[in-house]
Order: sequence, then structure tokens, then C-alpha cells
Amino acid sequence: MTKIVTAAVLVIGDEILSGRTKDRNIGYIAEYLANIGVELREARVVPDVEAEIVAALDALRARYAYVFTTGGIGPTHDDITADAVAKAFGVAIDEDPRIIAMMRRRYGEPGELTPARRRMARIPAGAELIENPVSWAPGFRIGNVIVMAGVPSVMQAMLDAAAKRLETGVKLRVETIEAGAIPEGRYGDALGEIAAAHGETMIGSYPSYADGTFKNQIVVRGRDGEKVAAARRAIEAMLDKIRGAAKAR
Amino acid sequence: MTKIVTAAVLVIGDEILSGRTKDRNIGYIAEYLANIGVELREARVVPDVEAEIVAALDALRARYAYVFTTGGIGPTHDDITADAVAKAFGVAIDEDPRIIAMMRRRYGEPGELTPARRRMARIPAGAELIENPVSWAPGFRIGNVIVMAGVPSVMQAMLDAAAKRLETGVKLRVETIEAGAIPEGRYGDALGEIAAAHGETMIGSYPSYADGTFKNQIVVRGRDGEKVAAARRAIEAMLDKIRGAAKAR
Repeated sequence: MTKIVTAAVLVIGDEILSGRTKDRNIGYIAEYLANIGVELREARVVPDVEAEIVAALDALRARYAYVFTTGGIGPTHDDITADAVAKAFGVAIDEDPRIIAMMRRRYGEPGELTPARRRMARIPAGAELIENPVSWAPGFRIGNVIVMAGVPSVMQAMLDAAAKRLETGVKLRVETIEAGAIPEGRYGDALGEIAAAHGETMIGSYPSYADGTFKNQIVVRGRDGEKVAAARRAIEAMLDKIRGAAKAR
Repeated sequence: MTKIVTAAVLVIGDEILSGRTKDRNIGYIAEYLANIGVELREARVVPDVEAEIVAALDALRARYAYVFTTGGIGPTHDDITADAVAKAFGVAIDEDPRIIAMMRRRYGEPGELTPARRRMARIPAGAELIENPVSWAPGFRIGNVIVMAGVPSVMQAMLDAAAKRLETGVKLRVETIEAGAIPEGRYGDALGEIAAAHGETMIGSYPSYADGTFKNQIVVRGRDGEKVAAARRAIEAMLDKIRGAAKAR
């Protein structure tokens, strides 16, 4: 039996929606999860508005095995993710003594343990901490929601830590076939027939455009390696036929 | 009176969720819209699954002035965006004679006007075409939904074309203040007070991390230039005070 484990990403932050910061976390998490056998099914970006965060969390956590959030867990007034998560789960939020203890070691000087820094110790009741080897302030997990920083290097370290405790499913087998300069419009019909005949695989065609020409790749994904290989062979044979016909003209 | 025009982005494509392709369109559209006075309020990424696309379209188009979609309008079987949009709007979809005429000029040779290519002529009834100077096949707009290609250079050209017919609102004034190496935890409390006192501006604090240290920027946004400037002055004075105190020690 093949186990399927699904996930969503929720990016929290005005700076992404204003265009100030270009998100790099969705793509990183997508690739990371694919490699460990978790299927990313949806991603959303919402602003630093509690009601928006709560609504998105509730929609996503009910639907997917895991929800990974990024952003909004720092020490400033616009960092409201922890409070929004507590609200979504209907649990209390307070300073976590484990984090306060970490802070006392780190901010020993008088005046260093500011109220702003203490904000970072606010964690929903019942959450497990996710360690942060980059900049110490931890993320956390509550239920199926994994709350991480927005800064990519910090998020990546937290994802490594969180991944140790994730259930994972079967890893999708992925095969990429170069169609090169053959236009999609020339192989689209045949590819559609192959996709219909190989229903247990997912087949996509992806153009990229540079220097005035398109180059195309066809990607086959599936849970069963033999079925993916069979689809790949059918696609390669189809492309060979098109290449042969082009040469013969 | 200040007019506010809102928008959402809907990225359609398995390749983004699998991590194969890193989305660059959300960030581009976000910045583009901010520059013309349209506020991006939400973004979503969904797979090439009709029901998912329709559900996201319906949620977003009801809520925001515009919805910009990217991806899924090519000639292959996995390009299902036009059908999903027609379904969401409850209108028919058929080959558009304007596009078929373009195709006949372009694909004059026998056998070139393949059924796959004709897929790209399928447009929901009542849609306006959005020209595509890069690779000819048009996008379209129906109601408040603007449907664009996924390939960034093509999407960007379509966005230029679509933008000519957008209603726009007041452009947010944005000011960025360098906090540099002052830790967020040291200015977070004072910044929160400034944010509370300047309620008609949006103030965010954004760390970036490189080479083992954080650098911070504070961003003030707002519709009223004078209020943004006042918040900026308050933040600069606050940072100067912290810098002065640090020197005095």
C-alpha cells in the first residue's frame, strides 16, 4: 500500500505581497518535501493580519496532513503568527519557560531581555519547540502546523529540525524528458493520448523561453516506478517519431 | 478620497508545487501592481486540477477587485486553466475565431494547425484577449480575472498589456529606513509604540541574514505621504537614540 502524506505552505508577510521581498521559501519547501515523500498540494501568501492568518490556517490544516508556515515570529509588533496560531487552535498563548531560560542565558546583561525579545518566547500552549541553530529563537509545532521563520537560512534550518518528526509517504518517482526545440503544439496531441493511457502517472509539459526560442521538458511523476518508466518510454518513442518525421522532410 | 484597488494572484501548476519550477511570477506581479496603485492582498498556488482552480478562483474573484492567474494556457493536456475559468464563470468555452485567424496566418503549412494548438484558441465566452508580443498566443480577461501564461517573460508582456485597462487606486508611499546591525530585539518595543501612534501607516521590520549576522530594515507604507514621512522621522529619531546610547556605553 502506498501512503500519501500531503502538505500546504502558508507564507505570512506584507513584505511578500508588497513585492519588497521575493519569496524563496515556497520553492525550497516544495522541493524539500518532494524529496522526503511529502506532497505539497497548495501554497498561500497572506498579509500580517490576524484574521487572514487564522482563516488560511483553518482552511489548510483541516485539509492537509501538514501546514508549514513561514514568517512573523520575530520580536517586532508585526510578528503576530504565534498569536494567530493559538487563536486558530483555540489554545492559550504565554511565555514558554524553556524559551525564557534560553533567553536568560543569551541576554544576561541588564536591559537586554527586552519585552520585544520576550515576544519571541510566546508560544501556544502544548506546542513543541523546533530548534534553530542559526539564530537560536525557536520555531514550534502544534498539531499538524509547523511554524517557522521567514528568513530563508533560518527557515531551512528549522525545516531540517522539523522534518525529523514528520510522517512521510511514498516518494514520487520523477522522470524528465528533454523535448528540446520540438514545439509543444507538435507533440501536444500525442502527449495527451499517452497521458490518458498512463492514468496512474502525472504528465506535464513545461516550456521555458530564452533568447527568442522555447525549450520544452516533459515531466512524468508517479508513485509506481515501473509505471513512470513505461510512460517515459512511450514519450521518448513519440518524440523520436516526431524527430524522424522532421528529418525525413 | 483615496481609492483602494485590491488584487490576488493565483499561480496554477503542478510544477511549482513539486518544486521543479521556482515561481518568479508572484514577486514580479506584486512589485508591478504596487507601482501602479493596485494592492496585492493574497496569493495562492494550486495544482493542475480543475476543481482546485475553480474553488480558488471563486474565493478570490469574489473578494478582490482583480485576480491575476499564471500558468496552464498552453497547448498540452495539462493546460486546463481556460476551461476552469469558464466553469467558474458558468459560461461556455469554444474556439475563438480571432485566435483561429491568428493561427491560420502563423501555422499555414498543412498539419501545423494541430488540435493541440487549437486548444490555445479555447477562450471563455465573452472574454477579451490580452496580446502576447513574445510568443503570440494571447491571454484573456473575463470579468475581473486576468489569465496569463506561466513562463515569466510571456507573463510579463501580458501584464503590460492587461495593465492598460486596469482601474488603479492610490499608490502606496513606501519609505525604507536602514536599522543595519541594531538587533530587532533592541528597537522592537519602541517601534511598536511608534506603530501604535501612527495608525494610518503600516510599519514592518525585516531582517535579512548573511555571513552570520542579521541586518534589519524598517519599512513604512501608507496612502498619505505626510503621515509616512512623520512615521519615518519618528523611527529615525528612535534609532539615533539607540545608536547614541550604544556609543555612550
